[in-house]
Amino acid sequence: MLTRKNNRAINQLRPIKFTPGFTKNAAGSVLVEFGDTKVIVTASIEDKVPRFLQDTGKGWLTAEYSLLPGSTDKRVSRDRGMLVSGRTQEIQRLIGRSLRAAVDLTKIGEKTVIIDADVIQADGGTRTASISGGYIALCEALKDFTPSPLLEQVAAVSVGIIDGEILLDLDYSEDSNADADANIVMTASGKILEFQVTSEKKPFNMEQAIKILETGEKGIKDIIAIREQLHLLPSQP
Amino acid sequence: MLTRKNNRAINQLRPIKFTPGFTKNAAGSVLVEFGDTKVIVTASIEDKVPRFLQDTGKGWLTAEYSLLPGSTDKRVSRDRGMLVSGRTQEIQRLIGRSLRAAVDLTKIGEKTVIIDADVIQADGGTRTASISGGYIALCEALKDFTPSPLLEQVAAVSVGIIDGEILLDLDYSEDSNADADANIVMTASGKILEFQVTSEKKPFNMEQAIKILETGEKGIKDIIAIREQLHLLPSQP
Amino acid sequence: MLTRKNNRAINQLRPIKFTPGFTKNAAGSVLVEFGDTKVIVTASIEDKVPRFLQDTGKGWLTAEYSLLPGSTDKRVSRDRGMLVSGRTQEIQRLIGRSLRAAVDLTKIGEKTVIIDADVIQADGGTRTASISGGYIALCEALKDFTPSPLLEQVAAVSVGIIDGEILLDLDYSEDSNADADANIVMTASGKILEFQVTSEKKPFNMEQAIKILETGEKGIKDIIAIREQLHLLPSQP
Amino acid sequence: MLTRKNNRAINQLRPIKFTPGFTKNAAGSVLVEFGDTKVIVTASIEDKVPRFLQDTGKGWLTAEYSLLPGSTDKRVSRDRGMLVSGRTQEIQRLIGRSLRAAVDLTKIGEKTVIIDADVIQADGGTRTASISGGYIALCEALKDFTPSPLLEQVAAVSVGIIDGEILLDLDYSEDSNADADANIVMTASGKILEFQVTSEKKPFNMEQAIKILETGEKGIKDIIAIREQLHLLPSQP
Amino acid sequence: MLTRKNNRAINQLRPIKFTPGFTKNAAGSVLVEFGDTKVIVTASIEDKVPRFLQDTGKGWLTAEYSLLPGSTDKRVSRDRGMLVSGRTQEIQRLIGRSLRAAVDLTKIGEKTVIIDADVIQADGGTRTASISGGYIALCEALKDFTPSPLLEQVAAVSVGIIDGEILLDLDYSEDSNADADANIVMTASGKILEFQVTSEKKPFNMEQAIKILETGEKGIKDIIAIREQLHLLPSQP
Amino acid sequence: MLTRKNNRAINQLRPIKFTPGFTKNAAGSVLVEFGDTKVIVTASIEDKVPRFLQDTGKGWLTAEYSLLPGSTDKRVSRDRGMLVSGRTQEIQRLIGRSLRAAVDLTKIGEKTVIIDADVIQADGGTRTASISGGYIALCEALKDFTPSPLLEQVAAVSVGIIDGEILLDLDYSEDSNADADANIVMTASGKILEFQVTSEKKPFNMEQAIKILETGEKGIKDIIAIREQLHLLPSQP
Repeated sequence: MLTRKNNRAINQLRPIKFTPGFTKNAAGSVLVEFGDTKVIVTASIEDKVPRFLQDTGKGWLTAEYSLLPGSTDKRVSRDRGMLVSGRTQEIQRLIGRSLRAAVDLTKIGEKTVIIDADVIQADGGTRTASISGGYIALCEALKDFTPSPLLEQVAAVSVGIIDGEILLDLDYSEDSNADADANIVMTASGKILEFQVTSEKKPFNMEQAIKILETGEKGIKDIIAIREQLHLLPSQP
Repeated sequence: MLTRKNNRAINQLRPIKFTPGFTKNAAGSVLVEFGDTKVIVTASIEDKVPRFLQDTGKGWLTAEYSLLPGSTDKRVSRDRGMLVSGRTQEIQRLIGRSLRAAVDLTKIGEKTVIIDADVIQADGGTRTASISGGYIALCEALKDFTPSPLLEQVAAVSVGIIDGEILLDLDYSEDSNADADANIVMTASGKILEFQVTSEKKPFNMEQAIKILETGEKGIKDIIAIREQLHLLPSQP
Repeated sequence: MLTRKNNRAINQLRPIKFTPGFTKNAAGSVLVEFGDTKVIVTASIEDKVPRFLQDTGKGWLTAEYSLLPGSTDKRVSRDRGMLVSGRTQEIQRLIGRSLRAAVDLTKIGEKTVIIDADVIQADGGTRTASISGGYIALCEALKDFTPSPLLEQVAAVSVGIIDGEILLDLDYSEDSNADADANIVMTASGKILEFQVTSEKKPFNMEQAIKILETGEKGIKDIIAIREQLHLLPSQP
Repeated sequence: MLTRKNNRAINQLRPIKFTPGFTKNAAGSVLVEFGDTKVIVTASIEDKVPRFLQDTGKGWLTAEYSLLPGSTDKRVSRDRGMLVSGRTQEIQRLIGRSLRAAVDLTKIGEKTVIIDADVIQADGGTRTASISGGYIALCEALKDFTPSPLLEQVAAVSVGIIDGEILLDLDYSEDSNADADANIVMTASGKILEFQVTSEKKPFNMEQAIKILETGEKGIKDIIAIREQLHLLPSQP
Repeated sequence: MLTRKNNRAINQLRPIKFTPGFTKNAAGSVLVEFGDTKVIVTASIEDKVPRFLQDTGKGWLTAEYSLLPGSTDKRVSRDRGMLVSGRTQEIQRLIGRSLRAAVDLTKIGEKTVIIDADVIQADGGTRTASISGGYIALCEALKDFTPSPLLEQVAAVSVGIIDGEILLDLDYSEDSNADADANIVMTASGKILEFQVTSEKKPFNMEQAIKILETGEKGIKDIIAIREQLHLLPSQP
Repeated sequence: MLTRKNNRAINQLRPIKFTPGFTKNAAGSVLVEFGDTKVIVTASIEDKVPRFLQDTGKGWLTAEYSLLPGSTDKRVSRDRGMLVSGRTQEIQRLIGRSLRAAVDLTKIGEKTVIIDADVIQADGGTRTASISGGYIALCEALKDFTPSPLLEQVAAVSVGIIDGEILLDLDYSEDSNADADANIVMTASGKILEFQVTSEKKPFNMEQAIKILETGEKGIKDIIAIREQLHLLPSQP
């Protein structure tokens, strides 16, 4: 049977830590740690919306993601604004869609919330850490809106298959060896926002797909429990 | 209960048609039609591989996708090579990953197969049509390799939720109204290569996620049955 | 004496075919075939004009051209929007100028007609096929304007010199061997809109230049005769 | 009848002046003046060739053209390297093709001659001035090659139609009013390298096309006569 | 007389803090704080050099700098790789030149040290903080080279003129009001590497220029004293 | 002791020449020569300002700089508009800041003066020649504004250290060997606008920094004296 680093159980998260208010200029800010993965997520608010929302009274939320060059063992090149790589684009679209689902954008007026997730140390699961932490930065940035535009808590976690086992919250060395990997985004009440599972080395069957979903649901409940201890999240309707 | 155009059943495909050899300069070529969605897919072979595969003896497969400007009701701007949009990048990465899973790349030497999917008429499901048709262009392009590098047939289909109903193979007007939509890529033997489901308007529950997968599996079997009547696909090992 | 493929006479066109309405989302659409050269041309109409025409009441017509990657024997890279190659830019400017001459732009209001010529199979003469076919897509797109903004039919053909002979409508293998090649654009009444002749391998003399023009004129009359059999072109004033 | 500035005859050039060696760092350099049009043309030689000529023993010649921002009445934006405008691309391709025809590239080895034409004051005919002057910079840059790789003198001039008259060497105000304009590139022995004629406002007929060519030929002979007085051009084989 | 925040003296630094080893994947890493300015600086080493150093046996050092979007009050757009702003380019060139002066590049072989300075919270003096902190990341990254390629300690500080007073280490609000500002880079032994002083609102005289230099020298000595308490810097030759 | 070309004294300028009105389309224009360095500088005026100045009633001044490809011994690539190199960006920012200090921008209304400095022959000191010449083009462009928006004359010069000697106005071969080099921008009344000194090969001490400044001041006085003989500069308030 497969042994994980620090004897982690197959459905156990890495140690997770949130440091809200990590920097002070952005409207919301947090340092998220999922084991050795560390991401600074900020939320900023701008008084404009994309063209397709002008004069609708509705707001928008978008996200940008980057790996800082020194965040990985082998330095990564900086992404280049409009010239961002396909991987980066997929991740920022995922973060954006996931956190948009957490907000009633008709309640913020014609403003845009911009989530910036900058990975300072990468060890797997950076996109799910960005979503799980981004929700905190988002809450801080929106705390003065009345009534609260927040709908429901959102969190995300990764799951993978290695040697037939379904593992929760892969670190980088696990991720590199996974036959398939998945990202799941859910709300506090257990609704699914996003489920993506990809065979990296080996296709999988329907039963495994379902098991992955269930493992992800377990992980998301654990993340939400940790986050609630921070007492900074708004109570939900 | 929801009525579909042409009285289509909720788990029924649109009329599907493949025209292999649609153009003659590329190594493989097909015109794929899923209802009113029409895509020209070609497969070309180049005698070089990306840097990370040089001197490994292995080949590669990659994909490019574009909507021709006149393919939609309201003209779309041309994608711009390196400056392709996030949506396009996601689609070409999905097509590439899906068709790579159909080939044993150690059997083609240091060559790159490039799949080009150009949508000439768009009516929903262009990415899944591109994968389902791309497999045919790929077979034609690889027909002279001995032993055949092909592993197993691959096909793809979309599924969505509208008003709580699970619908197979959405057309554009259905897709625009879907609460959630999904893309599924599977092999002929029923293994899953890729499953992506996203809530567009409303989150969904675990039971619905499973129902979507099952509906997709049914659709993929139907596509493979149609494709086998072409008798141009290689017999699989 | 030089023998052409299929015993074509030196001043004879390849088999020419127009399939109007080839796709259905754009305002106008045609599949043009000049021998093995196949181009999909669409015409779309947008409710805006370039800055230099704003508030003038006049419209505009512009063109984009691309070779689909699989249209040639050796795959061509996709052109890149703003980063299009010099060859592509020359061709799209030529198509635009030629078809602008066919329309009274003061009669369409502040709208822009965009002609998109996408070559799906390339065998020489793609730019002249695009103009000759583009005129049909243009007619379809403008058919509801009253009074008709169309001025006069426009068509185009290529001519070249090989071994001292003047040849009409070169295919790719002829074009590659030509000492000089030319593109001619004319109206139905025999007026010249554009004449470009370039020595590729050998300079030529005045007499040859004139002979090229006359051969082109003969070809354009033949194209217009074929096109008129379609009965879809508006009668001209 | 049409009166030209300074009572110029319709088939008369503007005052033309060449200042060879205008700058001293490039291998060849000239200031060309066609009336108020002033262009600095340099020729530089690099020890490399484009990929398609590597290991063939042959050389290459290419050209770049720019309008300096302050060269026109209303400042023009700088062209942007790879992002050059279509107009600029057409011009640099024309200059390159024309001057390539003046050199036997098999006699310079695997080197590239780069012609840079930078317009410091624009008053019409900048591309033909660039070619006519570029030939001088080219001669200077190649003067140490033995045997001389130069084939034959090359020069260029513009011609246009205004109110039915055929005018030689248009200045900017004439060019703006022309019904059609043309550029002609010829050799000293009267062979045509390039002839492009475009209707700007009105189509023209065959007879006019021929008259344009003849007028251009007259102008080119005049330019060559002026240039020969410089005594710096190599005697041709 | 001018009062500074926290009653800082005019020639007094803000509280300065270095946290070496702040992240663990890069070869060297530090969190630098100059008051509320916080910068993560990493040093990575790659086994290649720019083309102009290939086959010379010498190494290189280069730097990249960015403001994270959430680092400022009003969100800043991400710099775009090759499309970085002029301000960013100036800063990264300054950081690179300054730290190159600290290393004997002939002692590291054909390797490139890349310094990445990412500002997570901006409050003035980010470029001088990046240099002062960058030196620490550089030491860590080079600690295993024998003999040490390090030459001499390098540090940097800003100085400005407000209302005629010369102030050390400006924060953002001071910087915005400065009549002139300067950046000074020096070695531990008091040699000047770089001195840039610019009048922002008012020109200044020679005497002031000299006073600025002396104030900078005092600040740099203070920074070096703080840094030496870390005991992680190599003893210098 | 160090001997300079043409027996120039260490604190002596090269022969300096200004040719105002060198081209005639731009609002102001000059050919500046500092020895063999030759720069065409034009000043153009546009009826718009950057966004941050809209509706303030104030104007702006900005600068662009380029080396023409043939201006150097070894051809330089054209800068690419938005993709200009870091060196070019630094230079254009310096020219812009320096000349902005010469104008009261509240007196020109919402207009932008654009200074274009195009180096046609490069032999060191191109940025300081551009500033010193640019001031003349600026005066010509602003000559019709009443009251004159000009504040005070501005000029610039370079200084360097070679073998411990402080040299004024380095040519290219001196610049390549300098241990340190500096650029100084001053007003006619001796106020400093900009002083940048960088150690290229060897750090320098405080005393040398001061000597550099004094040498620069001497050179700037000499340039201003030469320029005043032109009698085209406005008398200052």
